[in-house]
Amino acid sequence: PTKLKSRRQRWNVRPSEMSKNTLNPIRAIVDGMKLTPNPHKSMIALSIGDPTVFGNLPTSESVLQAMKDAIDSHKYNGYAPSVGYQKSREAVANFYSQPGAPLEAKDVVLTSGCSQAIELAISALCNPGDNILVPCPGFSLYKTMAVSMGIHVKLYNLLPEKSWETDLQQLESLIDDKTTCLIMNNPSNPCGSVFTKTHLCNILSVASRHCIPILADEIYGDMVFPDCEFHSLAPLTRDVPILSCGGLAKRWLVPGWRMGWILIHDRNNVFGPEIREALVRLSQRILGACTVVQGALESILNSTPAEFYQNTISFLKSNSEICFYELSTIPGLTPVMPSGAMYLMVGIEMEHFPEFQNDVEFTERLVTEESVFCLPATAFEYPNFFRIVVTVPEEMLLEACGRIKEFCVRHYRHLSQGSNDLDQ
Amino acid sequence: PTKLKSRRQRWNVRPSEMSKNTLNPIRAIVDGMKLTPNPHKSMIALSIGDPTVFGNLPTSESVLQAMKDAIDSHKYNGYAPSVGYQKSREAVANFYSQPGAPLEAKDVVLTSGCSQAIELAISALCNPGDNILVPCPGFSLYKTMAVSMGIHVKLYNLLPEKSWETDLQQLESLIDDKTTCLIMNNPSNPCGSVFTKTHLCNILSVASRHCIPILADEIYGDMVFPDCEFHSLAPLTRDVPILSCGGLAKRWLVPGWRMGWILIHDRNNVFGPEIREALVRLSQRILGACTVVQGALESILNSTPAEFYQNTISFLKSNSEICFYELSTIPGLTPVMPSGAMYLMVGIEMEHFPEFQNDVEFTERLVTEESVFCLPATAFEYPNFFRIVVTVPEEMLLEACGRIKEFCVRHYRHLSQGSNDLDQ
Ligand SMILES: Cc1ncc(COP(=O)(O)O)c(C=O)c1O
Ligand SMILES: Cc1ncc(COP(=O)(O)O)c(C=O)c1O
Repeated sequence: PTKLKSRRQRWNVRPSEMSKNTLNPIRAIVDGMKLTPNPHKSMIALSIGDPTVFGNLPTSESVLQAMKDAIDSHKYNGYAPSVGYQKSREAVANFYSQPGAPLEAKDVVLTSGCSQAIELAISALCNPGDNILVPCPGFSLYKTMAVSMGIHVKLYNLLPEKSWETDLQQLESLIDDKTTCLIMNNPSNPCGSVFTKTHLCNILSVASRHCIPILADEIYGDMVFPDCEFHSLAPLTRDVPILSCGGLAKRWLVPGWRMGWILIHDRNNVFGPEIREALVRLSQRILGACTVVQGALESILNSTPAEFYQNTISFLKSNSEICFYELSTIPGLTPVMPSGAMYLMVGIEMEHFPEFQNDVEFTERLVTEESVFCLPATAFEYPNFFRIVVTVPEEMLLEACGRIKEFCVRHYRHLSQGSNDLDQ
Repeated sequence: PTKLKSRRQRWNVRPSEMSKNTLNPIRAIVDGMKLTPNPHKSMIALSIGDPTVFGNLPTSESVLQAMKDAIDSHKYNGYAPSVGYQKSREAVANFYSQPGAPLEAKDVVLTSGCSQAIELAISALCNPGDNILVPCPGFSLYKTMAVSMGIHVKLYNLLPEKSWETDLQQLESLIDDKTTCLIMNNPSNPCGSVFTKTHLCNILSVASRHCIPILADEIYGDMVFPDCEFHSLAPLTRDVPILSCGGLAKRWLVPGWRMGWILIHDRNNVFGPEIREALVRLSQRILGACTVVQGALESILNSTPAEFYQNTISFLKSNSEICFYELSTIPGLTPVMPSGAMYLMVGIEMEHFPEFQNDVEFTERLVTEESVFCLPATAFEYPNFFRIVVTVPEEMLLEACGRIKEFCVRHYRHLSQGSNDLDQ
């Protein structure tokens, strides 16, 4: 009878807590918006962080050829080691090795996209109850991962008035003895900002003072405009251990291929063999990247013509400048000029748009009236801004900017002296 | 000063508990073995569950062509939805739809290999502290996943004397109110067994009586010998909800491509929208399968010639029969004839091999003396057996069986009446 009692008598299958705690803020916000475009205007989406959607930024033919060669070789159909083929890891190590931050194959773990790199890095370093430091505004996946694992998130501020540099004091004030990882993202999604060497050293000082390892999300590494320089974090420190996450998605314009990596930088031997073993063990759960892409990797890294990278960059720079210039002329908007990546953040002077409660309502109405969709930065925990993806074709961007202007002009309200008087 | 106290003063980065709890028993056992082959004999590995390693079982040219077409189309480089392209999900749904178990695109989640399918299914259904029912002997990943998530594992027995059918009574006795998932694997790794319709219905009865959803690992589905029939589980029940996990790895002989899926069968609407949403949310963590493989999927499923599947099956059957026949003549070994998949389990009558403590020592010495490596079934929680992978070329298999015979003959000890006398 005890046995009978403990039996389930009817169906009651509930989703797990972890699945309920896996929250994607972008989906939560976008799905909650009423996105009904103006039927008289074609829809323009400036919201999608996928550079391939409009067809104007194809990957290099040499990248595609590398894939076909890998297929024709018949060598890349079986299981690879869970951390990737030795040769492919070597190719990544050679590509990213620098004086001051040397890499060997053993320092590279290949993953299913940069997303899995981030997942493995957080899972290796953090326990439930720990906390991690996450940039704000920042890419939402860090928080999604952490919360689903019971890890607390402390947001540190990036300052738009300082080209989105970190508020170092506030960052430092968040650290306690449960802080097990500092996540930084350079170049930044959603800001398009690129940190100077000095600023990177300042961040490293904080990490060093408090002995916090860094997860450096450098997926947009080297995607910086010509007048700017990208510095990866690792060569700038001798003591702070760094897991640098990257992948093919952005620079090679093939996000669907799910090829990412973790570069383990540990010159001070802080991680020791234990963290490396943790990453290897975690990589065995689902195995990582598609072997065909792994087989093509060496050639993708070494044989893509320099011109391809340059063309992407000049397109992104040109589009960013056009967008910045156009939006600068619009009353009530404050665009922040980016230096890299593929995004541009725009501040909304909400006091001039009293019709709208916040960035979500603002961008919602922009769809209703002008059929232009920009992601409200509430999705990045940063209200009163919206993010523009600058990978769309130039004419489309211009058309979108024109419509945004009309929209703002239509809804802009001057702060009259009169209303100020009334307040007093 | 409080602040200073809470600061970490020196580097002390520890791997997470989860990473420490991610245990791969195969690695743990194999890495602990002294595997030094006999220098006078070439190594033969009958241990590797990768059908591609010896080159004798290439995938179909049409499968490779589908990949190259997908690349040339330039359509599959961007992000797909996290559960996969609609068209690719539709193709899987059509391929696996059956009377009594219809599938639509919405019932399919594409994943990074069957491993991720298993991970998502367990993560969606189970909380820490719950328990799941896992076959013994069985594929080790179920336990690896569960333990890493704090989910308890209860092993239910498969009976070699009954062609590895489930011990239904023992299975049922394990169920309590914390049991949230029954995992079954048919055809089986490591047994090569294929369940009859009647036996499947018996398993379903247990699940139905106790209202336990089933994770059916059917990655070897349809890989059964011609004199046998494969029945997928879903059409045999009206009430038990089933997550059927599968993928391209085995039947299409491309395990490295990491293409898997979950088929959601829920005719009784027990899962409801909640479990589906849980799977979708979990799929957004790292996104799933490589888009090129997704793009090729429809053609892979629909245009692979029937001959290709038949050739694989007849090769596996022929090799299994050869292996079974050869090993049957060896004193002290009890091979169990498989009906499908690509494995064969061999019992070791340990009492006849007093030199060896267990299957691990037995297989270790087989390497030292004969340069033949078979996986000790302790890796599947099933001591005193070893597993042979029957995908190796026929001559290699024959040579290996010959060496196993010499080894056994050399070490076999008769249980003499004399020693029995002494015991009395
Ligand atoms: C900052 C950042 N990190 C990581 C990722 C994820 O990259 P992947 O598609 O390779 O998983 C993205 C994708 O948009 C990103 O913006
Ligand atoms: C029973 C079983 N399920 C799942 C898997 C994993 O398949 P995949 O390589 O697609 O992740 C395997 C691989 O050997 C297996 O034997």
